[in-house]
Amino acid sequence: MMEKPAETLTPVHALISKRWSPRAFADRAIEDDKLHSIFEAARWAPSSRNEQPWAFFVVTKSESESFELLLGTLMDSNRVWAQNAPALIMTLAHTVLEKDGKPNHLGFHDLGLATSNLVIQATALGLATHPMAGFHPEMARARFHVPEGWEPVSVIAVGYPGNADTLPESLRERESAPRRRKPLADFVFSESWGSPSPLVGTSKNK
Amino acid sequence: MMEKPAETLTPVHALISKRWSPRAFADRAIEDDKLHSIFEAARWAPSSRNEQPWAFFVVTKSESESFELLLGTLMDSNRVWAQNAPALIMTLAHTVLEKDGKPNHLGFHDLGLATSNLVIQATALGLATHPMAGFHPEMARARFHVPEGWEPVSVIAVGYPGNADTLPESLRERESAPRRRKPLADFVFSESWGSPSPLVGTSKNK
Repeated sequence: MMEKPAETLTPVHALISKRWSPRAFADRAIEDDKLHSIFEAARWAPSSRNEQPWAFFVVTKSESESFELLLGTLMDSNRVWAQNAPALIMTLAHTVLEKDGKPNHLGFHDLGLATSNLVIQATALGLATHPMAGFHPEMARARFHVPEGWEPVSVIAVGYPGNADTLPESLRERESAPRRRKPLADFVFSESWGSPSPLVGTSKNK
Repeated sequence: MMEKPAETLTPVHALISKRWSPRAFADRAIEDDKLHSIFEAARWAPSSRNEQPWAFFVVTKSESESFELLLGTLMDSNRVWAQNAPALIMTLAHTVLEKDGKPNHLGFHDLGLATSNLVIQATALGLATHPMAGFHPEMARARFHVPEGWEPVSVIAVGYPGNADTLPESLRERESAPRRRKPLADFVFSESWGSPSPLVGTSKNK
């Protein structure tokens, strides 16, 4: 896989800096125990009231029918490359509390915490991940019989990294584009909204 | 710090398995470069459309006025122990898109991704973290002049791990309680809602 480590002013752990979202996957299945591990990692994320308001669907190319069903929920622009991933994972948030069915406004947030664990663990195992919000949640709901109170949120392509030369030309360029992020001073504050924390405000000159 | 590694059926990376949310913090400041690193880690999280719909307030005990302001937004049950953490971080989600102000339903989710990076990086640096949803978001909004379109979501206590004996007796017991999670078969499906993926359904017998 192309290496695109994050350019950081202070060091961050390699599992965080080297993770990015490629579109090229190798034609190689993922071992069952590795797939198991990435869900085990998701399982141990923190959540408000320990609600664990998350669920996942996992389909591999060998389960061709389920794979096609989930692949078919993706927007065209994602399907064109995601069809070559050996596994797809749909993530779902529980938006009501288990106890009493009242709204849990942290369902999406806590799913994000679990999904991040999943992605980090995949990275640790040498797997590439590409989370996509570009899919049709209601189509996914119908196809996989998702009950009310649960929301399909993303589909993640997972697999061993592949060669960018295998991508259509239009995507090859995006694959090598640098990763960009806002500067820390834009979003780390201390005293009041918009005033950067001295911690990061001075970091530009370090 | 008490060690409470997650009990997993397949191995997960130590940064994930050893992370938990303690209430006891050491009386020791966090180095500036370490605090900087944990925001740098958050910065490199993935997000839908690369919106990066997250912001953070960070206050340390040395900034006593801001620290007291944020501490004062916590519910009593959290304030009793969080007051001893050397730093508090408030996380905020952008719930509208930068471009056109239309709703971004992934703001909370993507903040969760960034928050997880922050927590993982803190763990890598030997710091303990305890995210809390138990605070008053609207009080925080007023005190820190948070604009519309941004939602205060959590406050995270951060610091070097401390001795559980320093906690009030009522909390000491919770500190040593085992960490619990649902079994994977409850939330990892493949063909249809509620039918466990063979990947995890069989894992109980491994």
